[in-house]
Amino acid sequence: MVAKNTQEIQSHELVIADLLQGRSLASYIDHTLLKETASQQEILKVCAEARQFQFATVCIRPQWVILAAQELAQTTVKPITVVGFPSGQETTQQKVKETLAAIQDGAREIDMVLNRQWIRNKDYRNAEIDISEVVRAAGSIPVKVILETCELTDSEKMIACSLSKAAGAAYVKTSTGFAASGATVQDIFLMREIVGTDMGVKASGGVRTTQDALKMILAGASRIGASSSVAIVSGTDQPVSKSAPGTSY
Amino acid sequence: MVAKNTQEIQSHELVIADLLQGRSLASYIDHTLLKETASQQEILKVCAEARQFQFATVCIRPQWVILAAQELAQTTVKPITVVGFPSGQETTQQKVKETLAAIQDGAREIDMVLNRQWIRNKDYRNAEIDISEVVRAAGSIPVKVILETCELTDSEKMIACSLSKAAGAAYVKTSTGFAASGATVQDIFLMREIVGTDMGVKASGGVRTTQDALKMILAGASRIGASSSVAIVSGTDQPVSKSAPGTSY
Repeated sequence: MVAKNTQEIQSHELVIADLLQGRSLASYIDHTLLKETASQQEILKVCAEARQFQFATVCIRPQWVILAAQELAQTTVKPITVVGFPSGQETTQQKVKETLAAIQDGAREIDMVLNRQWIRNKDYRNAEIDISEVVRAAGSIPVKVILETCELTDSEKMIACSLSKAAGAAYVKTSTGFAASGATVQDIFLMREIVGTDMGVKASGGVRTTQDALKMILAGASRIGASSSVAIVSGTDQPVSKSAPGTSY
Repeated sequence: MVAKNTQEIQSHELVIADLLQGRSLASYIDHTLLKETASQQEILKVCAEARQFQFATVCIRPQWVILAAQELAQTTVKPITVVGFPSGQETTQQKVKETLAAIQDGAREIDMVLNRQWIRNKDYRNAEIDISEVVRAAGSIPVKVILETCELTDSEKMIACSLSKAAGAAYVKTSTGFAASGATVQDIFLMREIVGTDMGVKASGGVRTTQDALKMILAGASRIGASSSVAIVSGTDQPVSKSAPGTSY
């Protein structure tokens, strides 16, 4: 859709400002680099971009948290990391251990992966304990629960959302970026419907353009995970070629 | 449907025996009298019927548990009672108190009412704590969670089922018998689908005939709550006139 004149552009901008509730689009974004082959140079670049564009956080693998914490010191950008990533099949004890280590290193939010095998097996008790133990270990640090929505039925998504909320998590999040597909508008609608207004919803996986990001926020997302964050906020949207798992996060 | 000959009747009986997994229909039934105006004479009659027909339990209000426990001593029929009945809006503390008192009096199962207001408000944390505290107070005594399905959306039913299972309840149960309507085959299917095979599902409210009971068991119910239990097991099915709330339980 091409805006036809200045008035129309201004009206679009008002609608978007309203949608973003007066916040910058950048403040919604977890600037993310989770590919296993990421180099120190790439991590430094991501941190520099996050400082420049004022993204909410930088989301990297645990081994980079100390470096990112140094690079982001004295800024408002938080270093955050992942736990039980990307399978979620680790023991709860292992997830707790990873959480404590990440926070010790300077992580200010934890994105943990749900053990969806427990959801599939209808073992809701262990699925929830897995989350609540990480939440307890994290203390005041917010915990997001990655559902890997493309691997769940709608009923399983609803159940995972309600258990995550009951367990005290701060967000539910769609995807690792390492599965067959990522966030969809329909899933964000569903997740927001189930968790209500007092819990975060993070859209991640395949969010690559300004329009992708705005659609997710319109559907109810309060956080966006993306590696194309610079393109998203600078409006230089361009189709990104399909590449190796994790690089399209 | 009328069976045409002896062979056909025998084939029906085989199908039903298979459905009941070799158990008597009576063993599925909580013989129930929860109307507030029940007299001592009526309680004694219900206990006598339960002894005669070998129902699983007698389900009565808390004030009758001591009497029922006496009447059912040295039988396999268990006295069971309700907690937070019928609104479910009591505090968790109050429900725990009622649970402890009922067990002290001799109750061998507890049918508690979900606080569905917490489900509606998406406060899944308190909804689950409400259940898990009663489960903890009950110890080895099984706890059923009454959802009052006719007051919930399908999503809310699914969420309530998963939270009940996560909280360690033994059964989910459809209805108090004091709301606009009771158990439906569709709800029993849904509840069984969500909780899986290792949790009980109780159909209650409006189950009045042998056919009603068998339909519920076919859909996945492992327990039936009924006041027309004698008619159900003796096959003297007859339409029961709509009467005051609770009497059609």
